Amino acid sequence: MGPVNVFDYEKLAQARMAPPLWDYYQGGSDDEVTIRACRTAFERIKLRPRVLVDVSPDALDMRTSVLGTPISMPLLIAPMALHCMAHPEGECATAQAAGKAGTVMIASTVATRTIEEIAQAADGPLWFQLYTYPSLKVAESLVRRAEVAGYRAIVLTVDLPVLGNREKDRRHNVTIPPAPYLEANFAGVEKVGQKWVPLTWDSLAWLRSITSLPIILKGILTAEDAQLAVEHGVDGMVVSNHGGRQLDTAIPSIEALPEIVEAVAGRCEIYLDGGIRRGTDILKALALGARAVLIGRPVLWGLAVNGAEGVYHVLELLRHELELAMALSGRPTLASIDRSLVRM
Amino acid sequence: MGPVNVFDYEKLAQARMAPPLWDYYQGGSDDEVTIRACRTAFERIKLRPRVLVDVSPDALDMRTSVLGTPISMPLLIAPMALHCMAHPEGECATAQAAGKAGTVMIASTVATRTIEEIAQAADGPLWFQLYTYPSLKVAESLVRRAEVAGYRAIVLTVDLPVLGNREKDRRHNVTIPPAPYLEANFAGVEKVGQKWVPLTWDSLAWLRSITSLPIILKGILTAEDAQLAVEHGVDGMVVSNHGGRQLDTAIPSIEALPEIVEAVAGRCEIYLDGGIRRGTDILKALALGARAVLIGRPVLWGLAVNGAEGVYHVLELLRHELELAMALSGRPTLASIDRSLVRM
Amino acid sequence: MGPVNVFDYEKLAQARMAPPLWDYYQGGSDDEVTIRACRTAFERIKLRPRVLVDVSPDALDMRTSVLGTPISMPLLIAPMALHCMAHPEGECATAQAAGKAGTVMIASTVATRTIEEIAQAADGPLWFQLYTYPSLKVAESLVRRAEVAGYRAIVLTVDLPVLGNREKDRRHNVTIPPAPYLEANFAGVEKVGQKWVPLTWDSLAWLRSITSLPIILKGILTAEDAQLAVEHGVDGMVVSNHGGRQLDTAIPSIEALPEIVEAVAGRCEIYLDGGIRRGTDILKALALGARAVLIGRPVLWGLAVNGAEGVYHVLELLRHELELAMALSGRPTLASIDRSLVRM
Amino acid sequence: MGPVNVFDYEKLAQARMAPPLWDYYQGGSDDEVTIRACRTAFERIKLRPRVLVDVSPDALDMRTSVLGTPISMPLLIAPMALHCMAHPEGECATAQAAGKAGTVMIASTVATRTIEEIAQAADGPLWFQLYTYPSLKVAESLVRRAEVAGYRAIVLTVDLPVLGNREKDRRHNVTIPPAPYLEANFAGVEKVGQKWVPLTWDSLAWLRSITSLPIILKGILTAEDAQLAVEHGVDGMVVSNHGGRQLDTAIPSIEALPEIVEAVAGRCEIYLDGGIRRGTDILKALALGARAVLIGRPVLWGLAVNGAEGVYHVLELLRHELELAMALSGRPTLASIDRSLVRM
Repeated sequence: MGPVNVFDYEKLAQARMAPPLWDYYQGGSDDEVTIRACRTAFERIKLRPRVLVDVSPDALDMRTSVLGTPISMPLLIAPMALHCMAHPEGECATAQAAGKAGTVMIASTVATRTIEEIAQAADGPLWFQLYTYPSLKVAESLVRRAEVAGYRAIVLTVDLPVLGNREKDRRHNVTIPPAPYLEANFAGVEKVGQKWVPLTWDSLAWLRSITSLPIILKGILTAEDAQLAVEHGVDGMVVSNHGGRQLDTAIPSIEALPEIVEAVAGRCEIYLDGGIRRGTDILKALALGARAVLIGRPVLWGLAVNGAEGVYHVLELLRHELELAMALSGRPTLASIDRSLVRM
Repeated sequence: MGPVNVFDYEKLAQARMAPPLWDYYQGGSDDEVTIRACRTAFERIKLRPRVLVDVSPDALDMRTSVLGTPISMPLLIAPMALHCMAHPEGECATAQAAGKAGTVMIASTVATRTIEEIAQAADGPLWFQLYTYPSLKVAESLVRRAEVAGYRAIVLTVDLPVLGNREKDRRHNVTIPPAPYLEANFAGVEKVGQKWVPLTWDSLAWLRSITSLPIILKGILTAEDAQLAVEHGVDGMVVSNHGGRQLDTAIPSIEALPEIVEAVAGRCEIYLDGGIRRGTDILKALALGARAVLIGRPVLWGLAVNGAEGVYHVLELLRHELELAMALSGRPTLASIDRSLVRM
Repeated sequence: MGPVNVFDYEKLAQARMAPPLWDYYQGGSDDEVTIRACRTAFERIKLRPRVLVDVSPDALDMRTSVLGTPISMPLLIAPMALHCMAHPEGECATAQAAGKAGTVMIASTVATRTIEEIAQAADGPLWFQLYTYPSLKVAESLVRRAEVAGYRAIVLTVDLPVLGNREKDRRHNVTIPPAPYLEANFAGVEKVGQKWVPLTWDSLAWLRSITSLPIILKGILTAEDAQLAVEHGVDGMVVSNHGGRQLDTAIPSIEALPEIVEAVAGRCEIYLDGGIRRGTDILKALALGARAVLIGRPVLWGLAVNGAEGVYHVLELLRHELELAMALSGRPTLASIDRSLVRM
Repeated sequence: MGPVNVFDYEKLAQARMAPPLWDYYQGGSDDEVTIRACRTAFERIKLRPRVLVDVSPDALDMRTSVLGTPISMPLLIAPMALHCMAHPEGECATAQAAGKAGTVMIASTVATRTIEEIAQAADGPLWFQLYTYPSLKVAESLVRRAEVAGYRAIVLTVDLPVLGNREKDRRHNVTIPPAPYLEANFAGVEKVGQKWVPLTWDSLAWLRSITSLPIILKGILTAEDAQLAVEHGVDGMVVSNHGGRQLDTAIPSIEALPEIVEAVAGRCEIYLDGGIRRGTDILKALALGARAVLIGRPVLWGLAVNGAEGVYHVLELLRHELELAMALSGRPTLASIDRSLVRM
């Protein structure tokens, strides 16, 4: 029997990947407290299902849009580094799967395929995740290349001023990103070894000045920063702890979500990632105010197991689980999913 | 030494049943979070026993009634599919045991014995659990057959608009219900493969129009739906998460009970199932406002181990445990069991 | 190295006793939830130690009195059945140890030595625990014998209207009390098989009418019953769940203590048993308002390992631990131990 | 690959040390509840990181001062007994490492090198931890020797009126302090076996009268004592449960910190020890109001593994982790670390 949930993909992927690469994907920082807390946080939230609602296939509808782009479900592919470690086609395969599933892929600055190759392979909408590396000039050129290639938004990662303490990588003596993989977007760029350009709230003006694409901040975990982000005119934000890879013991994103939703008060779109493994997890994030969620590691598991088909299957598994969760909780539409669905 | 509690029956039954059938009975949906949470929820509730109350055998009385039908204890047999997987006599054996124990058996639409066979075998009161399958016309004929056969109430299951994600069954490649078993009530019915008819609150008017039997909704987990149910004139409701087999991470029924009791405010009868394994569990449900509880899996364990005798023994074990719990908590009558008995 | 704490005695005793007898002592009812909860309840309570207080040996004083009887520490020996299963000298050995340690032993109705033999062996104060068995007439004669033998109080057990469901005993096919042991106080009594006489609040008038000794109720777990007890003029009460042997999932006694202390408001003495294994446990019970605690199983462990010497050592281990706990928490006297010492 | 965190040092040190000595360092009192609770308390506190703050190396600054002495980071070396059990150079090696790392070492009265030897070896600031042993006269001479040797503060331990119940030591038959090691500061002192002089709040006047050095109390766990300490004019206090070695089930120091910070209201400096193993732990203590933290056992692990170099590496590991934690939480300066950083 093939894999029936994303945990099956996790096991299969681990069996296929060399430990250093696997650990690079799976690992978190320090003691991985946040990784575990993200899962238990979802399990602790209880659902309050409603009954005798029409949840027939005709009534069920999870289509939505993100920043005006229609998507088939409130689930996007999170930006992740180095897809080629999982599969030779790397981000191109992932992009194909995203398009086939009708959703957005967020391509990473540190992809192993170029901005243009991914756009070429994709037949769905793309967003571009930006690290200001190794210089603002290079970053600007990346943004322009993304614009030209048809990417529809810039996702600026704000929770990586420095790299988290990922001890598994250090024990494997893996440099981050692993050396042979980091050519794609930086071919011909000098001083790749240079430090990343530090970002502050002032950096948003720079970014705004070089692109007219919508700007999303990824890595917001507090109401205070959500308020600042809105004041700085962002179009969206991702509530995220970077998959538990940056500050260990950072609050699980699902626990940070309510205060952020309250602070934003509808003034921009809010997405969430961190620990999503089941359709009910997505449902809980939506109930607490997220417009959509991002998944990360499960996509890489699918990719490692079966390339574009594997990613597509992972996405469809989650879509089916979300459908089921919506039906079984009596919430056939996204509009019907509200705070009363959960007991925290 | 024979089994001294229902957990003993669980172990014995598992040893006797083929894994696919056992897993069909035992399994829940997704990660079975709700199944585990149902047990820990009961363990967390602490009892506050009273002393120096007359709890002598003469004073002890757990007789009650459900919708006017007298029963010997506040414990009914939950509707469950496919008893013949546990024992050749299936639901007929279960019905005999229920009658001998002086309580109600709720026969399932997807029984492996017909409505009439079960009624024939039974010498106690029966209720009929209804799925609207495969058409309203067939469902109506089932209700009429139940009326004719002497069933006293219709228990409409409202938490199964679609089937939950039961991965154990999928891994065993078990179709639900397993093909060879689903003939009983549907002999001669065309299009058994057709989808179930979706239910909404409007369906209650249809059901009301075809029968004068009392109507009970099974699968209520929120105060909001309890209020709606009362407004739609139901006679009773079962607070239930379908044994953790439908929406995983749904709230444990015992945790949902207080808000439902408050919302109903005595306007209909409230029953509860989900995780009852000890007499003290029953006591806690009664203290929080349930009129009676339903047990499911333990009945099948008894059936698998020793047919009607096994079921009867399971019922008597729980009756004895409840008697003991009432005596030891100084609550000799059902009327004396109130909210002050528990600390949550 | 010899045993350094009561847990060492537990292991040593288990190695010496036949499993059915060991299980009789150790076991609880049903799933033994209450036994485990009693330990975790103590561990969860945190101590707030004070410093720079004079806790020198001269300043430290844990002498107190119970119902006017001076004792060397706020620790009594709980009534327990059948000490001879642990050691041939049984209750006589226990009584010698209690006297040597300067505290009260509460002898059980179902002792394996007679009221008079225990009194003969003892050189310290004794209380008599009463079951109304097998008739009030016999019970009255037991009380009179206790009076004559010099016992100073009657401890009426109120939480055993019927015997709890002790499955370990049932699996060992042990009758309770084990047949060969129950002769001591009932030699020549007819109809030993008769049921115990049920007790109600009215029974206190009977007990008061037959003795002028102080009366203590053992088995109070609620403020309501504590209030009733005071109204019925009792001299003391033991907050107890019978060592987790009666109603499983009953509230841990240490968690019930605060509401009882509040309800009693100083109108009678309050003792506590249930899970005391460390000096800090005693300290916590005192901080929450108990005048003294009772220990049960650890006494039997000491008895099984080394007779009277073993019991004495157990008592002295706990005395030393309590001394240490008082010193380290800056509470050199019992009067200095108050609610501010704990954070629950 | 060498050790990458202090837990690695723990494993390496255990492999090098004889069990009795290892257990002396590692062990706590009674059941070691407090030791475990100290770790879980830190893990339970969640961080709320801020983003888009300038945390570049130029902006990051963790330099501070303690009682006017500048230190390179808010991390001091706690006073611990008997460093020579870990390494022949003992406290001298530790002092060298502290100086190299730019922080304070607090030398213990029961060091295995003399006050003067440690001062000689050190090239950084030293504080002297005082036990009033075996007489006030000897204690006074120790203080004077510390003054002469250039120690800058006296840290009076107030939570050891008697020794805690360290059962591992008792099982190893280890006398405390182990006999061959306790010569250093007591050479030529008579009656070393004499009991420690008990301390009370009045003792502070004595200490004040014999030295003009700042006075710090170590072992405060309540707001009440913090208030008294301030009223007695102390210059600082260490919130500490003595590493879980004194009163078991004492409150974790990090949980006691908030009430103490509130009570002190800035009137003296507050430090904390107890369970610090990660940079994020330090950050949490600072966020809750500590001026600096002390680490104990990890220093001994470093010492056992690699002498002064090992200690230095442990200190630098924690410094680097704290730097990272400050950067990743958007708190580049100590002034920017406040209560809003944590969710308890």
